[in-house]
Amino acid sequence: MGETIFSKILRGEIPCHRVYEDGDVLAFLDINPLSRGHTLVIPREPAATLDQLSAESAAAIGKVLPRIARAIMVATGARAYNVLQNNGASAHQAVDHVHFHVIPKYDDGSGLGIDWPAGSLDGGAQLASAIANEL
Amino acid sequence: MGETIFSKILRGEIPCHRVYEDGDVLAFLDINPLSRGHTLVIPREPAATLDQLSAESAAAIGKVLPRIARAIMVATGARAYNVLQNNGASAHQAVDHVHFHVIPKYDDGSGLGIDWPAGSLDGGAQLASAIANEL
Repeated sequence: MGETIFSKILRGEIPCHRVYEDGDVLAFLDINPLSRGHTLVIPREPAATLDQLSAESAAAIGKVLPRIARAIMVATGARAYNVLQNNGASAHQAVDHVHFHVIPKYDDGSGLGIDWPAGSLDGGAQLASAIANEL
Repeated sequence: MGETIFSKILRGEIPCHRVYEDGDVLAFLDINPLSRGHTLVIPREPAATLDQLSAESAAAIGKVLPRIARAIMVATGARAYNVLQNNGASAHQAVDHVHFHVIPKYDDGSGLGIDWPAGSLDGGAQLASAIANEL
Protein backbone atom coordinates (compact mmCIF):
# COMPACT_ATOMS: atom_id res chain seq x y z
CA MET A 1 0.00 0.00 0.00
CA GLY A 2 1.22 3.50 -0.82
CA GLU A 3 1.82 6.37 1.54
CA THR A 4 -1.28 8.38 2.42
CA ILE A 5 -2.13 11.37 4.56
CA PHE A 6 -3.38 8.89 7.18
CA SER A 7 0.04 7.17 7.33
CA LYS A 8 1.51 10.56 8.19
CA ILE A 9 -1.16 11.20 10.81
CA LEU A 10 -0.50 7.75 12.33
CA ARG A 11 3.22 8.56 12.55
CA GLY A 12 2.50 11.96 14.06
CA GLU A 13 4.00 13.83 11.11
CA ILE A 14 0.70 15.60 10.46
CA PRO A 15 -1.40 16.74 13.41
CA CYS A 16 -4.98 15.66 14.00
CA HIS A 17 -7.71 16.34 16.52
CA ARG A 18 -7.51 12.99 18.26
CA VAL A 19 -10.63 11.52 19.85
CA TYR A 20 -9.44 8.00 20.72
CA GLU A 21 -6.50 5.66 20.25
CA ASP A 22 -5.36 2.21 21.26
CA GLY A 23 -2.77 -0.23 19.94
CA ASP A 24 -4.80 -1.00 16.80
CA VAL A 25 -7.03 2.00 16.19
CA LEU A 26 -6.89 5.81 15.92
CA ALA A 27 -9.96 8.07 15.80
CA PHE A 28 -9.86 11.79 14.98
CA LEU A 29 -12.07 14.55 13.63
CA ASP A 30 -12.50 14.81 9.85
CA ILE A 31 -11.08 18.16 8.75
CA ASN A 32 -13.81 18.44 6.09
CA PRO A 33 -16.80 17.33 8.15
CA LEU A 34 -20.27 16.63 6.82
CA SER A 35 -21.60 17.67 10.21
CA ARG A 36 -20.41 18.62 13.69
CA GLY A 37 -18.61 15.66 15.28
CA HIS A 38 -17.81 13.85 12.01
CA THR A 39 -15.09 11.44 13.10
CA LEU A 40 -12.78 9.03 11.27
CA VAL A 41 -11.85 5.68 12.80
CA ILE A 42 -8.83 4.04 11.17
CA PRO A 43 -6.65 0.97 11.74
CA ARG A 44 -2.94 1.39 12.38
CA GLU A 45 -2.48 -1.51 9.95
CA PRO A 46 -1.90 -0.19 6.43
CA ALA A 47 -4.65 -1.51 4.14
CA ALA A 48 -6.23 0.38 1.28
CA THR A 49 -9.65 -1.26 1.46
CA LEU A 50 -11.62 -3.26 4.02
CA ASP A 51 -11.30 -6.50 2.06
CA GLN A 52 -7.50 -6.17 2.41
CA LEU A 53 -7.60 -5.56 6.17
CA SER A 54 -6.81 -8.34 8.65
CA ALA A 55 -9.66 -9.82 10.68
CA GLU A 56 -7.81 -8.72 13.83
CA SER A 57 -7.68 -5.04 12.88
CA ALA A 58 -11.26 -5.13 11.62
CA ALA A 59 -12.40 -6.65 14.92
CA ALA A 60 -10.50 -3.99 16.85
CA ILE A 61 -12.32 -1.25 14.93
CA GLY A 62 -15.69 -2.94 15.33
CA LYS A 63 -15.14 -3.29 19.05
CA VAL A 64 -14.65 0.44 19.66
CA LEU A 65 -17.29 1.78 17.26
CA PRO A 66 -20.18 1.61 19.77
CA ARG A 67 -18.13 3.42 22.41
CA ILE A 68 -16.97 6.12 20.00
CA ALA A 69 -20.51 6.57 18.68
CA ARG A 70 -21.84 6.99 22.24
CA ALA A 71 -19.21 9.61 23.05
CA ILE A 72 -19.95 11.57 19.88
CA MET A 73 -23.67 11.55 20.63
CA VAL A 74 -23.17 12.75 24.20
CA ALA A 75 -20.67 15.44 23.25
CA THR A 76 -22.64 16.79 20.29
CA GLY A 77 -26.22 16.08 21.29
CA ALA A 78 -26.80 14.21 18.02
CA ARG A 79 -29.55 11.59 18.18
CA ALA A 80 -28.92 9.92 14.82
CA TYR A 81 -25.80 9.06 12.86
CA ASN A 82 -24.41 7.06 9.99
CA VAL A 83 -21.33 4.85 9.94
CA LEU A 84 -19.88 4.70 6.42
CA GLN A 85 -16.82 2.99 5.03
CA ASN A 86 -16.03 3.48 1.32
CA ASN A 87 -13.91 1.19 -0.86
CA GLY A 88 -12.80 2.33 -4.30
CA ALA A 89 -12.86 5.74 -5.97
CA SER A 90 -16.23 5.04 -7.59
CA ALA A 91 -17.61 4.34 -4.10
CA HIS A 92 -16.39 7.75 -2.89
CA GLN A 93 -13.14 6.63 -1.24
CA ALA A 94 -10.76 9.61 -1.20
CA VAL A 95 -7.84 8.30 0.91
CA ASP A 96 -6.43 4.83 0.25
CA HIS A 97 -6.22 3.76 3.87
CA VAL A 98 -9.26 2.07 5.43
CA HIS A 99 -11.41 4.56 7.35
CA PHE A 100 -14.83 4.37 8.97
CA HIS A 101 -16.74 7.64 9.02
CA VAL A 102 -19.03 8.27 12.01
CA ILE A 103 -21.29 11.09 10.83
CA PRO A 104 -23.90 12.68 13.12
CA LYS A 105 -27.22 13.49 11.45
CA TYR A 106 -28.95 16.58 12.80
CA ASP A 107 -32.48 17.89 12.61
CA ASP A 108 -31.29 20.71 10.31
CA GLY A 109 -30.43 18.03 7.74
CA SER A 110 -26.67 18.30 8.12
CA GLY A 111 -24.82 15.01 7.88
CA LEU A 112 -24.64 12.33 5.25
CA GLY A 113 -26.96 12.59 2.26
CA ILE A 114 -28.14 9.22 1.01
CA ASP A 115 -29.89 8.23 -2.21
CA TRP A 116 -31.63 4.89 -1.85
CA PRO A 117 -32.85 3.63 -5.24
CA ALA A 118 -33.79 0.17 -3.98
CA GLY A 119 -34.78 -2.56 -6.39
CA SER A 120 -36.07 -6.07 -5.84
CA LEU A 121 -34.06 -9.23 -5.36
CA ASP A 122 -34.11 -11.65 -8.28
CA GLY A 123 -32.29 -14.96 -8.20
CA GLY A 124 -31.48 -14.54 -4.53
CA ALA A 125 -30.94 -18.20 -3.72
CA GLN A 126 -28.39 -18.63 -6.48
CA LEU A 127 -26.58 -15.39 -5.64
CA ALA A 128 -26.46 -16.16 -1.92
CA SER A 129 -24.95 -19.56 -2.72
CA ALA A 130 -22.37 -17.98 -5.01
CA ILE A 131 -21.27 -15.61 -2.24
CA ALA A 132 -21.38 -18.25 0.48
CA ASN A 133 -19.20 -20.51 -1.66
CA GLU A 134 -16.46 -17.86 -1.60
CA LEU A 135 -16.48 -17.60 2.18
CA MET B 1 -35.71 -3.61 22.13
CA GLY B 2 -38.87 -4.42 20.24
CA GLU B 3 -39.52 -7.25 17.85
CA THR B 4 -38.34 -6.63 14.28
CA ILE B 5 -38.31 -8.50 11.01
CA PHE B 6 -34.66 -9.31 11.74
CA SER B 7 -35.59 -10.99 15.05
CA LYS B 8 -37.88 -13.25 13.06
CA ILE B 9 -35.16 -13.96 10.49
CA LEU B 10 -32.71 -14.79 13.30
CA ARG B 11 -35.22 -17.25 14.77
CA GLY B 12 -35.86 -18.79 11.37
CA GLU B 13 -39.51 -17.71 11.33
CA ILE B 14 -38.97 -15.71 8.15
CA PRO B 15 -36.67 -17.12 5.46
CA CYS B 16 -33.64 -15.32 4.12
CA HIS B 17 -30.98 -15.91 1.52
CA ARG B 18 -28.18 -16.66 3.94
CA VAL B 19 -24.61 -15.81 3.00
CA TYR B 20 -22.78 -16.40 6.30
CA GLU B 21 -23.43 -17.18 9.95
CA ASP B 22 -21.56 -17.86 13.15
CA GLY B 23 -22.43 -17.75 16.83
CA ASP B 24 -22.64 -13.94 16.87
CA VAL B 25 -23.41 -12.86 13.32
CA LEU B 26 -25.79 -13.56 10.45
CA ALA B 27 -25.37 -12.24 6.90
CA PHE B 28 -28.01 -12.45 4.18
CA LEU B 29 -29.07 -10.73 0.98
CA ASP B 30 -31.15 -7.56 1.25
CA ILE B 31 -34.53 -8.23 -0.38
CA ASN B 32 -34.62 -4.64 -1.65
CA PRO B 33 -31.05 -4.32 -2.89
CA LEU B 34 -29.40 -1.14 -4.08
CA SER B 35 -27.25 -3.30 -6.34
CA ARG B 36 -26.48 -6.93 -7.06
CA GLY B 37 -24.91 -8.59 -4.01
CA HIS B 38 -26.24 -6.03 -1.47
CA THR B 39 -25.84 -7.91 1.80
CA LEU B 40 -26.88 -7.24 5.39
CA VAL B 41 -24.64 -8.24 8.29
CA ILE B 42 -26.41 -8.30 11.65
CA PRO B 43 -25.60 -9.31 15.23
CA ARG B 44 -27.64 -12.03 16.92
CA GLU B 45 -27.67 -9.73 19.95
CA PRO B 46 -30.78 -7.55 19.95
CA ALA B 47 -29.77 -3.89 19.82
CA ALA B 48 -31.57 -1.13 17.98
CA THR B 49 -28.53 1.03 17.25
CA LEU B 50 -24.76 0.56 17.20
CA ASP B 51 -24.26 2.64 20.34
CA GLN B 52 -26.45 0.13 22.20
CA LEU B 53 -24.56 -2.93 20.93
CA SER B 54 -22.00 -4.72 23.12
CA ALA B 55 -18.32 -4.38 22.25
CA GLU B 56 -18.20 -8.16 21.83
CA SER B 57 -20.92 -8.30 19.17
CA ALA B 58 -19.52 -5.25 17.41
CA ALA B 59 -16.07 -6.87 17.32
CA ALA B 60 -17.58 -10.08 15.93
CA ILE B 61 -19.18 -8.14 13.09
CA GLY B 62 -16.03 -6.16 12.41
CA LYS B 63 -14.00 -9.34 12.27
CA VAL B 64 -16.05 -10.93 9.48
CA LEU B 65 -16.67 -7.82 7.37
CA PRO B 66 -13.42 -8.12 5.34
CA ARG B 67 -14.13 -11.79 4.58
CA ILE B 68 -17.74 -11.13 3.58
CA ALA B 69 -16.67 -8.17 1.43
CA ARG B 70 -14.08 -10.32 -0.36
CA ALA B 71 -16.63 -13.04 -1.06
CA ILE B 72 -19.16 -10.55 -2.43
CA MET B 73 -16.54 -9.01 -4.72
CA VAL B 74 -15.45 -12.39 -6.08
CA ALA B 75 -18.99 -13.66 -6.57
CA THR B 76 -20.32 -10.50 -8.20
CA GLY B 77 -17.23 -9.09 -9.91
CA ALA B 78 -17.73 -5.76 -8.13
CA ARG B 79 -14.54 -3.75 -7.67
CA ALA B 80 -15.89 -1.06 -5.35
CA TYR B 81 -18.37 -1.09 -2.48
CA ASN B 82 -19.70 0.83 0.49
CA VAL B 83 -20.28 -0.39 4.02
CA LEU B 84 -23.07 1.59 5.65
CA GLN B 85 -24.69 1.34 9.05
CA ASN B 86 -27.58 3.70 9.85
CA ASN B 87 -28.77 4.74 13.30
CA GLY B 88 -32.06 6.59 13.71
CA ALA B 89 -34.92 7.19 11.31
CA SER B 90 -33.50 10.55 10.23
CA ALA B 91 -30.27 8.72 9.31
CA HIS B 92 -32.22 6.33 7.07
CA GLN B 93 -32.54 3.41 9.51
CA ALA B 94 -35.60 1.35 8.53
CA VAL B 95 -35.34 -1.69 10.84
CA ASP B 96 -34.59 -1.19 14.54
CA HIS B 97 -31.99 -3.95 14.81
CA VAL B 98 -28.35 -3.08 14.07
CA HIS B 99 -27.40 -3.92 10.49
CA PHE B 100 -24.37 -3.21 8.35
CA HIS B 101 -25.08 -2.90 4.63
CA VAL B 102 -22.37 -4.10 2.24
CA ILE B 103 -23.33 -2.51 -1.08
CA PRO B 104 -21.39 -3.17 -4.29
CA LYS B 105 -20.87 -0.16 -6.52
CA TYR B 106 -20.83 -0.92 -10.24
CA ASP B 107 -19.62 0.97 -13.28
CA ASP B 108 -23.24 1.46 -14.37
CA GLY B 109 -23.72 3.61 -11.26
CA SER B 110 -25.86 1.11 -9.37
CA GLY B 111 -25.20 0.97 -5.64
CA LEU B 112 -25.31 3.56 -2.90
CA GLY B 113 -25.81 7.18 -3.88
CA ILE B 114 -23.95 9.59 -1.64
CA ASP B 115 -24.21 13.37 -1.23
CA TRP B 116 -21.10 14.80 0.35
CA PRO B 117 -21.62 18.46 1.28
CA ALA B 118 -18.38 18.75 3.22
CA GLY B 119 -17.63 21.82 5.28
CA SER B 120 -14.58 22.90 7.21
CA LEU B 121 -13.66 22.08 10.78
CA ASP B 122 -13.93 24.95 13.23
CA GLY B 123 -13.08 24.59 16.91
CA GLY B 124 -11.67 21.11 16.31
CA ALA B 125 -9.43 20.96 19.37
CA GLN B 126 -12.28 21.80 21.73
CA LEU B 127 -14.70 19.39 20.05
CA ALA B 128 -12.17 16.54 20.00
CA SER B 129 -11.59 17.07 23.73
CA ALA B 130 -15.32 17.08 24.40
CA ILE B 131 -15.72 13.72 22.64
CA ALA B 132 -12.56 12.20 24.13
CA ASN B 133 -13.79 13.18 27.60
CA GLU B 134 -16.88 11.00 27.07
CA LEU B 135 -14.82 7.92 26.11
